Amino acid sequence: MNHVILIDCQDQKGLISKISTTLFDANLNITEMKEHVDVSSNTFYMRCEFAGSADLEKLKQTLSAQLPREAHIKINPKKKKDLIVFATKEHHCLSDILIRHSFGELNGEIKCVIANHRDLRDIVMKFGIDFIHIPHENKSKEEFEREILEVTKKLNPDYLVLAKFMRILSPNFVSHYPNKIINIHHSFLPAFIGANPYRQAFERGIKIIGATAHFVTDNLDEGPIITQKTNQVDHSYSADDMKKSGRDIERLALAEALAHALEDRIFVTGNKTVIFG
Amino acid sequence: MNHVILIDCQDQKGLISKISTTLFDANLNITEMKEHVDVSSNTFYMRCEFAGSADLEKLKQTLSAQLPREAHIKINPKKKKDLIVFATKEHHCLSDILIRHSFGELNGEIKCVIANHRDLRDIVMKFGIDFIHIPHENKSKEEFEREILEVTKKLNPDYLVLAKFMRILSPNFVSHYPNKIINIHHSFLPAFIGANPYRQAFERGIKIIGATAHFVTDNLDEGPIITQKTNQVDHSYSADDMKKSGRDIERLALAEALAHALEDRIFVTGNKTVIFG
Amino acid sequence: MNHVILIDCQDQKGLISKISTTLFDANLNITEMKEHVDVSSNTFYMRCEFAGSADLEKLKQTLSAQLPREAHIKINPKKKKDLIVFATKEHHCLSDILIRHSFGELNGEIKCVIANHRDLRDIVMKFGIDFIHIPHENKSKEEFEREILEVTKKLNPDYLVLAKFMRILSPNFVSHYPNKIINIHHSFLPAFIGANPYRQAFERGIKIIGATAHFVTDNLDEGPIITQKTNQVDHSYSADDMKKSGRDIERLALAEALAHALEDRIFVTGNKTVIFG
Amino acid sequence: MNHVILIDCQDQKGLISKISTTLFDANLNITEMKEHVDVSSNTFYMRCEFAGSADLEKLKQTLSAQLPREAHIKINPKKKKDLIVFATKEHHCLSDILIRHSFGELNGEIKCVIANHRDLRDIVMKFGIDFIHIPHENKSKEEFEREILEVTKKLNPDYLVLAKFMRILSPNFVSHYPNKIINIHHSFLPAFIGANPYRQAFERGIKIIGATAHFVTDNLDEGPIITQKTNQVDHSYSADDMKKSGRDIERLALAEALAHALEDRIFVTGNKTVIFG
Repeated sequence: MNHVILIDCQDQKGLISKISTTLFDANLNITEMKEHVDVSSNTFYMRCEFAGSADLEKLKQTLSAQLPREAHIKINPKKKKDLIVFATKEHHCLSDILIRHSFGELNGEIKCVIANHRDLRDIVMKFGIDFIHIPHENKSKEEFEREILEVTKKLNPDYLVLAKFMRILSPNFVSHYPNKIINIHHSFLPAFIGANPYRQAFERGIKIIGATAHFVTDNLDEGPIITQKTNQVDHSYSADDMKKSGRDIERLALAEALAHALEDRIFVTGNKTVIFG
Repeated sequence: MNHVILIDCQDQKGLISKISTTLFDANLNITEMKEHVDVSSNTFYMRCEFAGSADLEKLKQTLSAQLPREAHIKINPKKKKDLIVFATKEHHCLSDILIRHSFGELNGEIKCVIANHRDLRDIVMKFGIDFIHIPHENKSKEEFEREILEVTKKLNPDYLVLAKFMRILSPNFVSHYPNKIINIHHSFLPAFIGANPYRQAFERGIKIIGATAHFVTDNLDEGPIITQKTNQVDHSYSADDMKKSGRDIERLALAEALAHALEDRIFVTGNKTVIFG
Repeated sequence: MNHVILIDCQDQKGLISKISTTLFDANLNITEMKEHVDVSSNTFYMRCEFAGSADLEKLKQTLSAQLPREAHIKINPKKKKDLIVFATKEHHCLSDILIRHSFGELNGEIKCVIANHRDLRDIVMKFGIDFIHIPHENKSKEEFEREILEVTKKLNPDYLVLAKFMRILSPNFVSHYPNKIINIHHSFLPAFIGANPYRQAFERGIKIIGATAHFVTDNLDEGPIITQKTNQVDHSYSADDMKKSGRDIERLALAEALAHALEDRIFVTGNKTVIFG
Repeated sequence: MNHVILIDCQDQKGLISKISTTLFDANLNITEMKEHVDVSSNTFYMRCEFAGSADLEKLKQTLSAQLPREAHIKINPKKKKDLIVFATKEHHCLSDILIRHSFGELNGEIKCVIANHRDLRDIVMKFGIDFIHIPHENKSKEEFEREILEVTKKLNPDYLVLAKFMRILSPNFVSHYPNKIINIHHSFLPAFIGANPYRQAFERGIKIIGATAHFVTDNLDEGPIITQKTNQVDHSYSADDMKKSGRDIERLALAEALAHALEDRIFVTGNKTVIFG
């Protein structure tokens, strides 16, 4: 079975030598290896895929013994990760994920879809996925999120995907899933943070619209960016035309971000991402 | 000789019929015609090129008699417009304009280059263009701009092009040239307004950089956008790499905006542009 | 109800005047008008949308009386057109069309899906669309196409959409639907005509892959091009990676072409298209 | 001083370990390392930059002793390479190179410009570069190329850059500079090989134009592709409009290819390139 090693630690001379030699000595074959040094923080990041059977615990110890003390080392089997998808009323990102999932292109398992409205129940049910309706009306955000957490804690997903989920999650909720919640924002961040970005873009008279997939943090639309896509528009586009045109780049930006996450290709470093795509 | 008619007025039924019939009756041949209705302000915009010799004054009167009272009608001969280019130390946008000008691709005449530093004197002189050094040091902005105005008022250009001119022009200066000053801003506006946008972009960890050409208004980097270009980047780009990569899209965004302006293809409507490209 | 007028005829002075005045006199409001003159063939193309109730027959006669004798004039109501979608085993283009159709984004009605394999039966049935399995094995192309024609002739669709349909249609079949069959070819035509374009692209070592939606004519992959999309690749892409990456641009190129067709935005002129997008 | 190591050899387990350990043992600091395995030919490619002073000959021997016998190992100092630029009448690619060179952005030294016409003499002279006029008229290709070779052999450049050089070089000439001649072709290869690609593109009615920088081999326009760029066009573009629009992507494709070459980032493998960009 193939595995992915993810390492980040203080940079120093010889890291690649030490890591690659450890793998070679363990008779493992490196099939893909990428590294990056963030100069400002002097941090070394590496993602490495290997084939071959290994005593993972021992491998981790051997690596640990050679790397700087505070090194983070993860060795993950290459297998499907579990997702929960969140949605509200707009279907396009959810539909895209359902289709990819349905044809085995997603590298992940959708455990359920949680939505605060019933609009998308039909499309989810078509694909045999559990649709869990958790309305937000007539309850506090705290209560709303408690109901959500009850579901997510039970299913214990690797990632939560906000596929046009139109509720803002509280810092408390987010704290349960640091760097595990992926959102699609319908603008070229950091432009047009917040509500109605296409309306904002239209009012500003921009000539290119954007979509941004990012991890959710406490600050609305300010988490680490994973992918961005853009599309040319012109003066003939109404705010609604921009919204329609934006759907395709939203779907693609989210799908690409999700693929990176599901294949363990993302490091979060401060408020940025390193992506070994 | 070919001419360009530019009309904007309140929208109403029959405008295209009236205008095209007027041209037909004057035995003129429409070679290109584009129109746009801004629904929110109920404004009709039209750009129309025609071939054939006409009594322009009479044509304007005939059009005027048929269009809504407050209609703006301009009939411009298709000929080269006059430019003054402003620069500071960075050459790439200026070089691009000089080269295009030198080979007759610009549809405009550069009357002179004004710069607040001497760094680009050589490249300008190579092309036989007047280089006017107006330093900003040791003088008030008022004084600095008065010296500039002395030059610009004498040469009376159609457009002022800020090709990486690193001084902010005062509202007073701008008021002399409404919708006549084109700036290139090295970000995807409205993201990263102000100084050091590539540094800001780097700090934010964005995955696409941008460049925006726009008309200059009183509010820094907030004037009507003409063109925008983007380029993919990733975590391996330093702020300086982004800056380097950005040069090519800055050059192209400015060149395209300039081409639109020089061919009378831009209407400014509020803080937006209608571009009949 | 809104209507679309499509006119093509020999170019001459005054056409816009005549057409727009005719509409104005009939008290119709032009909401969108675009024209193009193909200089090499001296042909005038116009697409015009109008609002207002009209005696269409009379309108057509009035236009006809004023335009050059051989003018083609069509006045179509703006309403959904009927489609038949063809597929084989790959789902991505079909899925995309099904999803857009399901959420009313397609501006068309899918009458049925015809496939020469059963693989996509499930996804089609999920959306309540008729799935008609017409295998090609053990029969002549003539027989195969006769069976297809039986279905298509009965349903009388406006367009046939080949959504990764892996059978080549005979000139005889195509002759039943001139400029009515839209195909998606998985390359940047005219590069890599024929089978296995991603394999061809991989062998050639290209750095950008493409997808092309086009009308089907007698000559394989040589019909009038409607839309093209491209994606950056590099040496790390296998032929299979290119194929995967190509799916997204194939879906988008076909969806965009289909939208143009369903909104009466395409003229075919010789082996080219004029698209009033 | 920094150096670049370029290695290609048969792939086998442990290569990264051996190479990185050799560098570590020599007390060298790897600042950038990228590798690729071409699965079909089982070939390992690596580009590695290191800082630190080394006995290069000894380093090469040590590496050689550990790598498969037929390994190619090059250790180049990171320094400017020498270029000769070839042109005919069109200026845009040449101008772009001259400007970048003039401002130290090229990472190379232009030894001279060779042209078969005099049209571009002025622009070259402006930049203080030798302009060598070698007309092709009234002489055989053999004679023409012999005159060119006289110059190139004397100046011994690292790369020959065909910046819109409109003469086809013979296999004999090319054999002197294998994988050292970079051409810009004004189409999206392999579409529109040969003369007048924009005319061909126009006739075919394509919706995207392209430009391709590639190494020159015996077969016209069929050498290993380095970079490709594309631009959207539509039915309103004449062949000449396409040509104008194409200039910008031609300049950028060639500039990017040149940058890769000058920084030792390209491996040629069969008729393809591996580019560690």
